[in-house]
Amino acid sequence: MPPFQDHTIVVLPGDGVGPEVTAVACAVLDSIGDFYGHRFTYQEHLIGGAAIDATGEPLPDATRDACRAADAVLLGAVGGPKWDGGKRRPEEGLLAIRKAMGLYANLRPLQVSPVMAHRSPLKKEIVEGVDLIVFRELTGGIYFGEKTRTDTTASDLCVYSVEEIERVARAAFQTARQRRGKVTSVDKANVMETSRLWREVVTRIQAEEYPDITLEHALVDSMAMHLIRKPREYDVILTENMFGDILSDEISVLGGSIGLLPSASLGTEGPGLFEPIHGSAPDIAGQDLANPVGMVLSAALMLRHSLKLEDEADAIEAAVAAVLAAGAVTADLGGELGCRAAGDAICDAIRAIH
Amino acid sequence: MPPFQDHTIVVLPGDGVGPEVTAVACAVLDSIGDFYGHRFTYQEHLIGGAAIDATGEPLPDATRDACRAADAVLLGAVGGPKWDGGKRRPEEGLLAIRKAMGLYANLRPLQVSPVMAHRSPLKKEIVEGVDLIVFRELTGGIYFGEKTRTDTTASDLCVYSVEEIERVARAAFQTARQRRGKVTSVDKANVMETSRLWREVVTRIQAEEYPDITLEHALVDSMAMHLIRKPREYDVILTENMFGDILSDEISVLGGSIGLLPSASLGTEGPGLFEPIHGSAPDIAGQDLANPVGMVLSAALMLRHSLKLEDEADAIEAAVAAVLAAGAVTADLGGELGCRAAGDAICDAIRAIH
Ligand SMILES: CC(C)[C@H](C(=O)O)[C@@H](O)C(=O)O
Ligand SMILES: CC(C)[C@H](C(=O)O)[C@@H](O)C(=O)O
Repeated sequence: MPPFQDHTIVVLPGDGVGPEVTAVACAVLDSIGDFYGHRFTYQEHLIGGAAIDATGEPLPDATRDACRAADAVLLGAVGGPKWDGGKRRPEEGLLAIRKAMGLYANLRPLQVSPVMAHRSPLKKEIVEGVDLIVFRELTGGIYFGEKTRTDTTASDLCVYSVEEIERVARAAFQTARQRRGKVTSVDKANVMETSRLWREVVTRIQAEEYPDITLEHALVDSMAMHLIRKPREYDVILTENMFGDILSDEISVLGGSIGLLPSASLGTEGPGLFEPIHGSAPDIAGQDLANPVGMVLSAALMLRHSLKLEDEADAIEAAVAAVLAAGAVTADLGGELGCRAAGDAICDAIRAIH
Repeated sequence: MPPFQDHTIVVLPGDGVGPEVTAVACAVLDSIGDFYGHRFTYQEHLIGGAAIDATGEPLPDATRDACRAADAVLLGAVGGPKWDGGKRRPEEGLLAIRKAMGLYANLRPLQVSPVMAHRSPLKKEIVEGVDLIVFRELTGGIYFGEKTRTDTTASDLCVYSVEEIERVARAAFQTARQRRGKVTSVDKANVMETSRLWREVVTRIQAEEYPDITLEHALVDSMAMHLIRKPREYDVILTENMFGDILSDEISVLGGSIGLLPSASLGTEGPGLFEPIHGSAPDIAGQDLANPVGMVLSAALMLRHSLKLEDEADAIEAAVAAVLAAGAVTADLGGELGCRAAGDAICDAIRAIH
């Protein structure tokens, strides 16, 4: 066995079911570490509502500094009705850490396996075999533009620069090269100026740098429709922040449960941040009911993208596929396991594979 | 028989399949007129790409003035690749007429009949019996805010005033009172200032004026998900312009074909504008392939909302239900009829009912 390799992972459990699912992800990483010779050192930090309660700030400086210095960051979830109407919102912490770490590309892969296809609200013949990935721009657009508020009006500014569009477009084209070679760029170019810039820049980058990739453009409204009618036609979907938020949640139902889906947020350099698509789910928090799979698959993405541990990532994904096939799953998937037990099943599957 | 009552209808065929479907709608209205004693006088005017080609302007003054003076306006569709990259865009005409007529409330009803449920990409047990209506704010938000463009950046401003939110909220609550008494207001209050204002105003209007209506709030991203998972739970959905555009297109697939769906755009007073949800469909334009049902049902909404002819509206809807049940439909619904023949079938059904 090789000497243990050390990796420093900042863990941000956050709110709601966040602490439960991050705990499972760490247990799964430890199982992987045992077999492949890695030691993961976890540093827990505050974010979101938990951070507001403890410090008044949704993203304390200590959290931000630790994230920047880490090898990678695992995030559970933030938010909940407890902080509604408060001076600071938990979500501010999430937006601030994305910005502070320069995480401009949010990757949301979606595969619908035959095992899961029957759980979809869509017909099996439509969803079975879906294999796509959404590239959502994560540090621009209406999320970060200037906001104003008076007694009688409010406004949000949506801004994009050429450079912001170029870098996320390159990330999407690069990934398409390792997949089926097709990018669908989504905008609202018949209404928005930022969308017209988006379309121009994406078109130019493809022509100049990725002539081998097929590029098509779609309007966000018709895309919302096509993603339900013919989801198998898509390979890489590239879009701006808000449209990416809406469309990736929409397609999260294709696989039967949003609890299954991971995401990776990456910058040009520095650590990435890995979080499940699902939110804090306050209604089931603290009851050992959450599905840990989205978080565990996010840890797999962390191994692949931030730590360059491809075999280890594959091993987690294989273990998850095995437990899904065996029905060792939580209630959202019709199973009987709690969050912890579902995590144990994944750890067992890792040991069984090795 | 009563003496004929005259109604002046401005018809804006527009682009693509627009002329084909508006022609059918006029034929259907004439059949209704024969039985109920109405004479519809149609004034055709230019809008969109057709108007750009003829006059250089997507909304000529003559069109705008005629629309304002009419009893109601029927619109086909605007846009198409022919005008991509041109100085003026066809869609400008559509946005300008909505604004010029003060059409702040866009109603998009959706019912999924047992006859159509099997054509849905969703499982029958999820979509059968869906009966909802979307109220989309139509003259505010990012569609109409200031836009900027430089060599390196672009921006779009999303603005809402209290008054703009109040009036569309009242329209939605009013309709909910005649339905199942529930309004779901959709926003992105965890990120957008306009959404926080939206949520405040909608909450206040309900408390002060509609205490009998149940109000719930949903975030646009999770709503995109819930509309697929449990569409039957919704009654009236209230949302701002862009979210309404995306969500109403998304749910248009529930009923099997976007070609079936009508919309009504209403102001406080003055004529309404009635158009199908589908676009100009340039790929099938001029081939007698378009489904006229969305346009015909839009004409029914015109009878109901602008002309207060409830029985006549009911008669069109009954005739459409009859042809759908009989399978006298266009190719998008698996039928063999062309656009004109599908229209004739609806006219025949009107005669058969009477
Ligand atoms: C919590 C919220 C601010 C966030 C977003 O909109 O980005 C979430 O919906 C997500 O998709 O990660
Ligand atoms: C054509 C376009 C400008 C329009 C819109 O976005 O409003 C259309 O999609 C619609 O929904 O009526």
